Amino acid sequence: MEKKKERTLVEKTADRIIEYIKDNNMQPGERLPSEHVLTDMLGVGRGTLREAIKTLMSHNILDVRQGAGTFVSYKNGIPEDPLGLALENSDEKLLLDMLEVRMILEPEIAELAAMNATTPQIDELFRQCRQMEDLITENKSYIKVDALFHQKVAECSGNRIIGKMMPIITSSIQLNVGGTRDQFKKKTIEEHRIIAEAIANRDPRGAKYAMIAHLNTTRSGVTY
Amino acid sequence: MEKKKERTLVEKTADRIIEYIKDNNMQPGERLPSEHVLTDMLGVGRGTLREAIKTLMSHNILDVRQGAGTFVSYKNGIPEDPLGLALENSDEKLLLDMLEVRMILEPEIAELAAMNATTPQIDELFRQCRQMEDLITENKSYIKVDALFHQKVAECSGNRIIGKMMPIITSSIQLNVGGTRDQFKKKTIEEHRIIAEAIANRDPRGAKYAMIAHLNTTRSGVTY
Repeated sequence: MEKKKERTLVEKTADRIIEYIKDNNMQPGERLPSEHVLTDMLGVGRGTLREAIKTLMSHNILDVRQGAGTFVSYKNGIPEDPLGLALENSDEKLLLDMLEVRMILEPEIAELAAMNATTPQIDELFRQCRQMEDLITENKSYIKVDALFHQKVAECSGNRIIGKMMPIITSSIQLNVGGTRDQFKKKTIEEHRIIAEAIANRDPRGAKYAMIAHLNTTRSGVTY
Repeated sequence: MEKKKERTLVEKTADRIIEYIKDNNMQPGERLPSEHVLTDMLGVGRGTLREAIKTLMSHNILDVRQGAGTFVSYKNGIPEDPLGLALENSDEKLLLDMLEVRMILEPEIAELAAMNATTPQIDELFRQCRQMEDLITENKSYIKVDALFHQKVAECSGNRIIGKMMPIITSSIQLNVGGTRDQFKKKTIEEHRIIAEAIANRDPRGAKYAMIAHLNTTRSGVTY
């Protein structure tokens, strides 16, 4: 992060809380020390600390649960609307634009995933495949699991930026699937499994082209 | 944007302000009606309105200037840290990961730009080239103009998502250029101009490969 000039005490305090989280390698869901301990440690008043925590909440870095304490957020500091789409009309062009971005990024991501995935990551991919298959068999909504599969493939790439960018892109999957008809469900299951297998087989080209085929199915679900 | 269940009155009020901005096609820098007019229009109290405005400020949608009023923010609703990098250690691996993402996206973006750029957008590209040339001749910092050139190429793509994603990527240019030595400045000038010319000539392959060459220069500035 670039440092701005003349940061206020609240901002500096927020920065120091972030440093504390990083230094202690705290993970999402872990609880921060009490307010009393934090004010002592940071040498600031309660008002300043609370303002700093509020700022970090608004940045999805912390989560305050009344009565339970302050926790590292599961949102990992990723904002709700990273692209500022709130100000855009979500017409079909925007959906196709998002798909175009996915068609640029995801085949390359699948290729990287086949090169860099760890064994536990590959196990996790197949677990996601099975979970989606179960949900579709039970006729339950599988949208979130669909997005999660693409997120897991991104994490397999070993590129931390790609892992962080994927939620921006998968947020659009919810929109796509709205337009997806029943016949696509079976195809989605099959295609996810082919991608996972190519990654497990360390087959970068196979993974890349399996992802291209899958995105092509997705796109045809939107446009036809 | 997906609608959440049980939105509070403050959130609903914030949503309605966003609708107002969109319906009136308000542009960054334009002033919102006064607090008095807004409370009347939205049928909420002053406290609720102020909280809603605060929320929209924290989302970079509005800007409040003391004594002057409330304005549509030039930040276009794009958060400071869209990828949540505050929680990442910015080591060299992260920088190379960002470059890898740029190497996936930007050649394709340049290709789209050569297909879709409008004449005013092309004029703007050359204006950016000249501005950077001037800054480098005068030995002034050209980092922001460098990032702006890549942003303008992204806008030429005609893909709104790409236009919105670019600030996430160009935010890393500042880091790259830190590692860029003097001999790269001249190269950067030349390479930007070659990209702009390929786009102006409606030469998608040329633009794509000119961008690949440029990113290769950038990467060698970081790694060697």
